[in-house]
Amino acid sequence: MALNTGNKIPLYQQIKQNLKQRVKMGVYNEGSSLPSLRVLSKEFGVSPGLVQQAIYGLESEGLLAVQHGKGVRVLEKKSSESVAISFGFIQPYVEYMTFEGQIIHYAEKVFDRRNNFMIPKSSEGMASREREIVEHFVQNGVKGIILWPIDNDPNGEFFQNMSHRIPVVLVDRMVDGADLPSVVLDTHEAGCDVARHILGKLNCRRLLVLMDNLVISTNRDLIQGLSEQASEMGRMMDLTVMHLPITDFIQRLNVGDYSQVNMYIELVERQIREGGYDCIFCPQEEFLESVIIEPDMDKKFPELKLASMTGPMLTRSRKYNEFGVIRWVWDFPQMISSAADILQQWVLRRKRPTENVSIQIKQWQSTE
Amino acid sequence: MALNTGNKIPLYQQIKQNLKQRVKMGVYNEGSSLPSLRVLSKEFGVSPGLVQQAIYGLESEGLLAVQHGKGVRVLEKKSSESVAISFGFIQPYVEYMTFEGQIIHYAEKVFDRRNNFMIPKSSEGMASREREIVEHFVQNGVKGIILWPIDNDPNGEFFQNMSHRIPVVLVDRMVDGADLPSVVLDTHEAGCDVARHILGKLNCRRLLVLMDNLVISTNRDLIQGLSEQASEMGRMMDLTVMHLPITDFIQRLNVGDYSQVNMYIELVERQIREGGYDCIFCPQEEFLESVIIEPDMDKKFPELKLASMTGPMLTRSRKYNEFGVIRWVWDFPQMISSAADILQQWVLRRKRPTENVSIQIKQWQSTE
Repeated sequence: MALNTGNKIPLYQQIKQNLKQRVKMGVYNEGSSLPSLRVLSKEFGVSPGLVQQAIYGLESEGLLAVQHGKGVRVLEKKSSESVAISFGFIQPYVEYMTFEGQIIHYAEKVFDRRNNFMIPKSSEGMASREREIVEHFVQNGVKGIILWPIDNDPNGEFFQNMSHRIPVVLVDRMVDGADLPSVVLDTHEAGCDVARHILGKLNCRRLLVLMDNLVISTNRDLIQGLSEQASEMGRMMDLTVMHLPITDFIQRLNVGDYSQVNMYIELVERQIREGGYDCIFCPQEEFLESVIIEPDMDKKFPELKLASMTGPMLTRSRKYNEFGVIRWVWDFPQMISSAADILQQWVLRRKRPTENVSIQIKQWQSTE
Repeated sequence: MALNTGNKIPLYQQIKQNLKQRVKMGVYNEGSSLPSLRVLSKEFGVSPGLVQQAIYGLESEGLLAVQHGKGVRVLEKKSSESVAISFGFIQPYVEYMTFEGQIIHYAEKVFDRRNNFMIPKSSEGMASREREIVEHFVQNGVKGIILWPIDNDPNGEFFQNMSHRIPVVLVDRMVDGADLPSVVLDTHEAGCDVARHILGKLNCRRLLVLMDNLVISTNRDLIQGLSEQASEMGRMMDLTVMHLPITDFIQRLNVGDYSQVNMYIELVERQIREGGYDCIFCPQEEFLESVIIEPDMDKKFPELKLASMTGPMLTRSRKYNEFGVIRWVWDFPQMISSAADILQQWVLRRKRPTENVSIQIKQWQSTE
């Protein structure tokens, strides 16, 4: 990867900034020596003279000591700590989902740990806006991007090309046509775990899965995991997957529109009766809360168990939290944290990582 | 205000950036002429030669046309639009409050409207961290800061001094010792409005106000407004203000700790019975929801009315939303938006504004 020759910061400044960050991150420790001019100039793809210039600059700032004939020694880490690199975080969610605020918060924290800056932008689910934001970041000296792509993102080729100018790490979803490092949650394994727990450990008779009808890899993998595991246990006949427009339903709830609730209550009640289900798994807690728990459906079906997935925060009602829903945790903080690590390493070491990280989805354990 | 001579961006670049932003914001329109070199150099506090250099730079970028003897004409706005200025947004809230994510979201949107960058940082309620963040922003070329101060912020003098190096606009609260432009919500007038509505328009007999015991100006002003209005109506005897550790209670709910709920249910029930209250006003919806609405206290007191304050999003339960709580809206989006306007103007026009803006708190109107 070459230095960013398109932006307005002189190459020599960029090298200085990079070396400072390496000291700050402990790539070079206090008291140790820097690699030779030759090695560094090769690594940065610039002349040794330019690296020398940067080193003299850092010497005058008290970070390095040039010992003629003995190389360059790192003097103190302190002065490197205040240098911030700006990173961009692009995600597709919009106003009415409090979820957006939560994930921005995680991104803020994880870059703050290294005294870097995180600039959040929402693509608002639009492919064109995604491209505009990436270009805007590049033009304004942003050094790396975490991208949470939109559904069925068509920008694969664009990101692939862009990644030669600016490091991009994907989170939550892959994008067709873009071979970029990524961090996703392992929803396939989560699906297996849900089936193992409900049909195996709890030995439920029949499991009804209520899935959103949004076609994203997350949902597809989850269902595949469920099916494979049920099949392996010889319980395929005891698993029913039903697709419903659940996200649409939840968006209505969030603006106080309860007009669909009664319809879903009837639908679910009929399903349970006709199918003899003793467990319902729906990854979206809001659906279980408003359609099953709030209307006290457990009084009609006392043996009914509920299972869901949850963010790291307990934001549901008291009644929901006391129901004892079995939950698996979407570990978004861990996902974003891993992506930020990969991205910051990429920017600092100037070497494209090849990682595709899968974050395990664990069952939630009450801390009480 | 002088140009930022302490940071590493050359003065000439800073002037270029500023002129570009002025074109982008429409301070100078397409086709119009720039003020004379003399005027601009005086305004920036630099030599006319430096301004000339910046203008030639912008000419080569196609933004301006230098017409010798006829001044400088603005050619096109388009190329100015991609220049982003970085702003910092410091707020005191921490992880377990989803509130934090919401306000960061508003700040993101309002700077994005002008293609600028917003870097969020949390002071985590610590005065020392607040100072560190401000210094870190200044060192790294951030051009202006919106600051949501911590409770009883002791950094007044620090901010006052800092504001000569970097523009700072306060939101939500003033800070003793800092004479800075600010945007706050008019909670005093909100208190008057609540009293007028409940004791006047609805003609309730007795009003119980449950207030958090946190001593911040917001709460103090709200109570003062309530009292003054009740007094003016000759109804002081019908108003009781009770202070309780409500924020602490809500933080427990947010981590699934319901141990205090029954105690508060008993306390509130006894209060209503003994005091003959027919309306309760508590600015924190979570308290009303878990202590009064979820345990169906309205069945014991069918004439009981509830009043509260709400953020711009309906995130409470269905039962809560259907109860018909009378609500006033904390207009945080408007507050942050006004502060961002003042801050961006300050940075661009290089003139310290004197505004202290009060945002009116209006009663919430259902859109149905």
